[in-house]
Amino acid sequence: MPATLFILNGPNLNRLGTREPETYGRTTLADIEAQCRATGARLGFDIVFRQSNHEGTLVDWIQEAGDVARGLIINPAAYTHTSVALHDAIRTAAVPTVEVHLSNVFAREAFRHHSYVSPVAVGVICGFGAKGYDLAIEALANKLGA
Amino acid sequence: MPATLFILNGPNLNRLGTREPETYGRTTLADIEAQCRATGARLGFDIVFRQSNHEGTLVDWIQEAGDVARGLIINPAAYTHTSVALHDAIRTAAVPTVEVHLSNVFAREAFRHHSYVSPVAVGVICGFGAKGYDLAIEALANKLGA
Amino acid sequence: MPATLFILNGPNLNRLGTREPETYGRTTLADIEAQCRATGARLGFDIVFRQSNHEGTLVDWIQEAGDVARGLIINPAAYTHTSVALHDAIRTAAVPTVEVHLSNVFAREAFRHHSYVSPVAVGVICGFGAKGYDLAIEALANKLGA
Amino acid sequence: MPATLFILNGPNLNRLGTREPETYGRTTLADIEAQCRATGARLGFDIVFRQSNHEGTLVDWIQEAGDVARGLIINPAAYTHTSVALHDAIRTAAVPTVEVHLSNVFAREAFRHHSYVSPVAVGVICGFGAKGYDLAIEALANKLGA
Amino acid sequence: MPATLFILNGPNLNRLGTREPETYGRTTLADIEAQCRATGARLGFDIVFRQSNHEGTLVDWIQEAGDVARGLIINPAAYTHTSVALHDAIRTAAVPTVEVHLSNVFAREAFRHHSYVSPVAVGVICGFGAKGYDLAIEALANKLGA
Amino acid sequence: MPATLFILNGPNLNRLGTREPETYGRTTLADIEAQCRATGARLGFDIVFRQSNHEGTLVDWIQEAGDVARGLIINPAAYTHTSVALHDAIRTAAVPTVEVHLSNVFAREAFRHHSYVSPVAVGVICGFGAKGYDLAIEALANKLGA
Amino acid sequence: MPATLFILNGPNLNRLGTREPETYGRTTLADIEAQCRATGARLGFDIVFRQSNHEGTLVDWIQEAGDVARGLIINPAAYTHTSVALHDAIRTAAVPTVEVHLSNVFAREAFRHHSYVSPVAVGVICGFGAKGYDLAIEALANKLGA
Amino acid sequence: MPATLFILNGPNLNRLGTREPETYGRTTLADIEAQCRATGARLGFDIVFRQSNHEGTLVDWIQEAGDVARGLIINPAAYTHTSVALHDAIRTAAVPTVEVHLSNVFAREAFRHHSYVSPVAVGVICGFGAKGYDLAIEALANKLGA
Amino acid sequence: MPATLFILNGPNLNRLGTREPETYGRTTLADIEAQCRATGARLGFDIVFRQSNHEGTLVDWIQEAGDVARGLIINPAAYTHTSVALHDAIRTAAVPTVEVHLSNVFAREAFRHHSYVSPVAVGVICGFGAKGYDLAIEALANKLGA
Amino acid sequence: MPATLFILNGPNLNRLGTREPETYGRTTLADIEAQCRATGARLGFDIVFRQSNHEGTLVDWIQEAGDVARGLIINPAAYTHTSVALHDAIRTAAVPTVEVHLSNVFAREAFRHHSYVSPVAVGVICGFGAKGYDLAIEALANKLGA
Amino acid sequence: MPATLFILNGPNLNRLGTREPETYGRTTLADIEAQCRATGARLGFDIVFRQSNHEGTLVDWIQEAGDVARGLIINPAAYTHTSVALHDAIRTAAVPTVEVHLSNVFAREAFRHHSYVSPVAVGVICGFGAKGYDLAIEALANKLGA
Amino acid sequence: MPATLFILNGPNLNRLGTREPETYGRTTLADIEAQCRATGARLGFDIVFRQSNHEGTLVDWIQEAGDVARGLIINPAAYTHTSVALHDAIRTAAVPTVEVHLSNVFAREAFRHHSYVSPVAVGVICGFGAKGYDLAIEALANKLGA
Repeated sequence: MPATLFILNGPNLNRLGTREPETYGRTTLADIEAQCRATGARLGFDIVFRQSNHEGTLVDWIQEAGDVARGLIINPAAYTHTSVALHDAIRTAAVPTVEVHLSNVFAREAFRHHSYVSPVAVGVICGFGAKGYDLAIEALANKLGA
Repeated sequence: MPATLFILNGPNLNRLGTREPETYGRTTLADIEAQCRATGARLGFDIVFRQSNHEGTLVDWIQEAGDVARGLIINPAAYTHTSVALHDAIRTAAVPTVEVHLSNVFAREAFRHHSYVSPVAVGVICGFGAKGYDLAIEALANKLGA
Repeated sequence: MPATLFILNGPNLNRLGTREPETYGRTTLADIEAQCRATGARLGFDIVFRQSNHEGTLVDWIQEAGDVARGLIINPAAYTHTSVALHDAIRTAAVPTVEVHLSNVFAREAFRHHSYVSPVAVGVICGFGAKGYDLAIEALANKLGA
Repeated sequence: MPATLFILNGPNLNRLGTREPETYGRTTLADIEAQCRATGARLGFDIVFRQSNHEGTLVDWIQEAGDVARGLIINPAAYTHTSVALHDAIRTAAVPTVEVHLSNVFAREAFRHHSYVSPVAVGVICGFGAKGYDLAIEALANKLGA
Repeated sequence: MPATLFILNGPNLNRLGTREPETYGRTTLADIEAQCRATGARLGFDIVFRQSNHEGTLVDWIQEAGDVARGLIINPAAYTHTSVALHDAIRTAAVPTVEVHLSNVFAREAFRHHSYVSPVAVGVICGFGAKGYDLAIEALANKLGA
Repeated sequence: MPATLFILNGPNLNRLGTREPETYGRTTLADIEAQCRATGARLGFDIVFRQSNHEGTLVDWIQEAGDVARGLIINPAAYTHTSVALHDAIRTAAVPTVEVHLSNVFAREAFRHHSYVSPVAVGVICGFGAKGYDLAIEALANKLGA
Repeated sequence: MPATLFILNGPNLNRLGTREPETYGRTTLADIEAQCRATGARLGFDIVFRQSNHEGTLVDWIQEAGDVARGLIINPAAYTHTSVALHDAIRTAAVPTVEVHLSNVFAREAFRHHSYVSPVAVGVICGFGAKGYDLAIEALANKLGA
Repeated sequence: MPATLFILNGPNLNRLGTREPETYGRTTLADIEAQCRATGARLGFDIVFRQSNHEGTLVDWIQEAGDVARGLIINPAAYTHTSVALHDAIRTAAVPTVEVHLSNVFAREAFRHHSYVSPVAVGVICGFGAKGYDLAIEALANKLGA
Repeated sequence: MPATLFILNGPNLNRLGTREPETYGRTTLADIEAQCRATGARLGFDIVFRQSNHEGTLVDWIQEAGDVARGLIINPAAYTHTSVALHDAIRTAAVPTVEVHLSNVFAREAFRHHSYVSPVAVGVICGFGAKGYDLAIEALANKLGA
Repeated sequence: MPATLFILNGPNLNRLGTREPETYGRTTLADIEAQCRATGARLGFDIVFRQSNHEGTLVDWIQEAGDVARGLIINPAAYTHTSVALHDAIRTAAVPTVEVHLSNVFAREAFRHHSYVSPVAVGVICGFGAKGYDLAIEALANKLGA
Repeated sequence: MPATLFILNGPNLNRLGTREPETYGRTTLADIEAQCRATGARLGFDIVFRQSNHEGTLVDWIQEAGDVARGLIINPAAYTHTSVALHDAIRTAAVPTVEVHLSNVFAREAFRHHSYVSPVAVGVICGFGAKGYDLAIEALANKLGA
Repeated sequence: MPATLFILNGPNLNRLGTREPETYGRTTLADIEAQCRATGARLGFDIVFRQSNHEGTLVDWIQEAGDVARGLIINPAAYTHTSVALHDAIRTAAVPTVEVHLSNVFAREAFRHHSYVSPVAVGVICGFGAKGYDLAIEALANKLGA
């Protein structure tokens, strides 16, 4: 039975492809989901792919990932910079977690340079658009010896 | 068909009129809604008027406003000062947005002096109580050439 | 008819007992609820005991407490440090509120040293694990002349 | 006899219409004065409309407003951010004061985000260009029960 | 032979009851001592209760507590915010220590929000007036399995 | 021929006696001038007593004091906190200068705690109302061996 | 019976006259005491004049002043900048207090620019050497209507 | 007809040559004016050379320079560090502007290290005394292709 | 002819495998080079792989990469946090650059949380050990359409 | 007659050897005293060796050292970081002073990185345990040409 | 024999003319060298003109300049903002030094606003492109009385 | 075979004896080397004594010391305050390291108060001139049980 990876997406990512295309490109979240499922399949993972605008829902799902998944990939979007709740949830879940950002957050506003998620993640990947999700799956596969 | 304006209200505003009357007066949110509908009608706008205590719900509604409204008036209340998610949602929605506060936030605690919403708003109106909503509708009407 | 106390618990506390036992011990939230009900009964209080990962839900419940309870005990967990919405809700509710933390937050990361809840609480109790809830009930009983 | 409103304009506003039109538009200060007189007339106010590049002159005029006016509208321009003298003058004058800015100062350089005037104003209106003056007159009229 | 608890009180607490009654109430330190002795007796503790205006004397007593006491309750008053010496003394003494404040220090001046004592205490109780000492004794009793 | 002392008063002090009487009392600037002339006469000084709302005028007068006076007393009011120009003028004038404030600036807003004038003054006197001017004249007389 | 003034001197002032004469002059603390007694006598005050290097002793004496004196003059020296205990003692003592410094602290190291005593003093006098004590006695006499 | 350069000098520069000669030398502002006229003549410029202690007057003159001059050289002296009004005036005037300081401001007090003028100047020259004005004229000549 | 990728390694990375194995593992830099050559070969890249302890040498090599390479991968190690020179070199080189770190720098000392390189990189990958180099090559391949 | 060196030890050092042995080792203060007397004897110094938990007592002793000693060695322990009084005492005493710490304070908490004593000391030695006292005696002997 | 001027250029300036032409123009470093040699010849100076990407090499050359040159012109580029070593080298070399920047660093990123070189330079010239080197040679000639 | 100590000296120390003699004295680095060889010989150490202006070279040598030396003494000079690379090199080298400074860095500019080297050193010795090297050798000998 294949191992499960959770891929969670934070606020406003449901609007991807319509949002500031000069920053994020025209890829939609559905495109990214399809790509992740393909990459997951190739590497032997079942992918659970979700998005929410609600901080609490993301906390719920991280807890769920802690129960059923082998790894977690999270693009926390705006909550990256403001959510101690996500920090605590990931620390509690104790499942290897990779933080992904579509854009290079360090080339944007100063308030995007700090992440509450990074200190409890295994690693961080940012700036590579949709490709970053693929890299994150690979990184987790490598980490898990998959 | 009249254009639609969204008027969104953040956490605790559902308790208006009972909350610190020396700061906000005794007007309820229902009073403000009625007043906004009257002003909207006079200026040719349909008004969608909502309140939520949930940051994620406000994000949902801002996205909806981006789809169907000509303008957005938001009193983000406490989320003004803590929500990058609202900032991102408004920037993505790309609908002219006016930030309103009942009280003069600059005469209150230091943590109320910074707004994540202001940089992505057209303008800010604060300190005029319920009247501020009227001014915001007028400002949007003027902006939209209504 | 006994007076009602609301006891509200913030994000990730539903996972108590599995989470970092070296910091919080193995007690579950159900254990704490049982203990609170016992202590409440002894001191003549009905206890309403709830947990949510959602900031907005906690705001809803604080408003409810303002309507029906004689006192409020809140362990805001991660939202302690980031939520102006909880601050505003407690100030509005105008019900005596005690802030409780299981661990000694002042011996942990710097971002846990600031609380938006403390300035609107009657008092703060931290570092005593589940026992802190008992102390908070007693403190409220004493405050209310119960 | 109609009540008098003072409308005071700070440094460089005499060059309006030539200055950074992409930020402020092509409206001149004379245009704004005409518009304010019209709005004032409609709402039953005599308008005293002045501009100075001198901080001390603005202080003089605020004191004068405190003696003879029912309300004060001020666009302090650059002195917004540097003048404790304006702060003290407005506090002393004890006449209801509205702070207006043509542009959304919160979307500009960081040094424009702090105002010494805001804490002693009734309210603040920014980002609506010349229309902001109209809104300020209305806000004062509402405040004064005019 | 009953275990001993040290209860140490910092500068100006000898004037309690005369000092800012709107903040601290009219209870005197002698009242608190009597109450502590009663509570201690009930829970099987001998109470050593002292007050000093001298930082060095408090350091001496903390060292003494480390030698002879099972627990330490300290209301460091003003030295809370300025004394690294108390911090070091408590860390050295290696006796479980509870920090108590009569008032809610987090609702007062900013310089009272930082404590050098908290990081080396088991826990902190503040805002409950004299009752806080009782709660601290109970907390220690619970901690010590008394 | 008696020596001359300049006594210069900054912005808004011309309104003294009408301004926030709970902070400054009901004494007018004319009262203070009369009192200073009397004290000056007693100690053998001619008094030049002036007020301006204009920073530049205060600079002009400080330069003049440097040419013709034995000492300078200045209440820079709001310019205390914002004027490097006054700092430079006093340093250049090289006449012994005493800084006076009617109120205790250190018990007011934080932005009143810093003075650009203090580092180039002989000394500072604040909090004693009109009496502070008398003390300043005496201090200068003592300094000058008058 | 003449009223009593306490004049308290902080650490290292017992060495006055030997210490950095270029900053403080050659006057000894005994010289200042004699001068204060003379001035006190002239204005109808009994003077209690003391010095201590111990923060706790200064707290003790401020409490004593609160019991028996009409006014308090304090040169807290180094404790000015570090002692919340003095701040609390003066606030509690509720006797009019003048803060005096021999040198102009604002022209010295940055750590001498902040005083914990100033916010609870009636006023501050600094930079006039021994003369400052005379001015402080006069200021208190004036304040007390002596 | 020769092009016109404005050379504006800020507060206290009228006292040059008497002011801190160890910092600025004994050259007077009249000496500098003569030198500038000579250099201007050599390079084909009419020189308008003025000084004011008034921030507002400097703003007036910068506006005038924007109307009639090909270039602006400004030594804003103390207003360098405090005047957003000069910043705005220069940005509006849209005439190439060189900022000059007689002394090396970066080797002086920290509050002289920040300039509101620099971001809107073409360039900055400091530390070369009167010679700096010559260099600035040359720099402008070079910039203007003169 | 295959495209060339430069992979540059900063100070102390030549000691990899001996250095803090609990943080970086036992892999040597030669191991990483071999792995990169393999991955490069698979994706059609020639790999230039170098290490230096010298900031200036890294600048030289970045300039060289700008001349001859299609992409640059850099692990700037300690210079990440201190080198504006690397920032400028990468910006000038104008070759797509990926920043890699073996460890998760955001989980280490605060001075490792800021990078001068990130704002001029395409993206950042950290926390995945040697695997991070592979991911960086893939990311560049994807970016370059290889 | 041999010259005298004062060696003063601050708060909690009387507990040395029992306190955090992993940081300070098991050497007691008596051991250090014996070692210092031996080294002093070898280098021709009489040693006065004292310890106090009282800041004021340390000030007294520093003053005494200024009168009778050729040199001063001080381990101010916790008062290092909080005592302006020690700073002033050492500056006044005008006796060559060496600051010693047993542990490497720069490898500990951030609040131990600042010393009020260092700027008035000849030099600082930290991190070498009891050996540091020997080095300090040698350093003073060298300084004094002993 | 003509006097020698050293002109030293920091990292990445060897790439001038290719680097961000919108900021620096198309002039190469060779162009600047030729221009400096011409200006030097006209003013009677031998020019030593060098560039290095290595901080240490720049330190070596500054030391050499201290031995053989009458003046030093340095464009430290990126090392301006990060190199205490350059600061120390220039202070030691004790040769009059002028700091030059091609662009107006104060109109760029905040990290370019601080210079370690400025406090030890005679003066600073920035924003005039290659012309700035000419101005610097002239400034030094003037300084040296050449 | 005697153990080897590395003694490494940072930028500008090659100019010792010519540099600011009022701060460092007239001793040259060759004098210090001779003294260190003598002290080393006495204590049974071979001394490797080097100086470089290049950060990278110092990193190279620290790595070498890690391979062949029993201890390392480093005077990092300017790189003390700016080099994370030295920090990492020393941590990696895992050889006991003593940080030495000739002057008392804590009595100099603020930017010299922070050291990247101290947290990874055994201890720090500063302010004793050339003698500090002797003390460091002794400290290492003591540490190594030599």
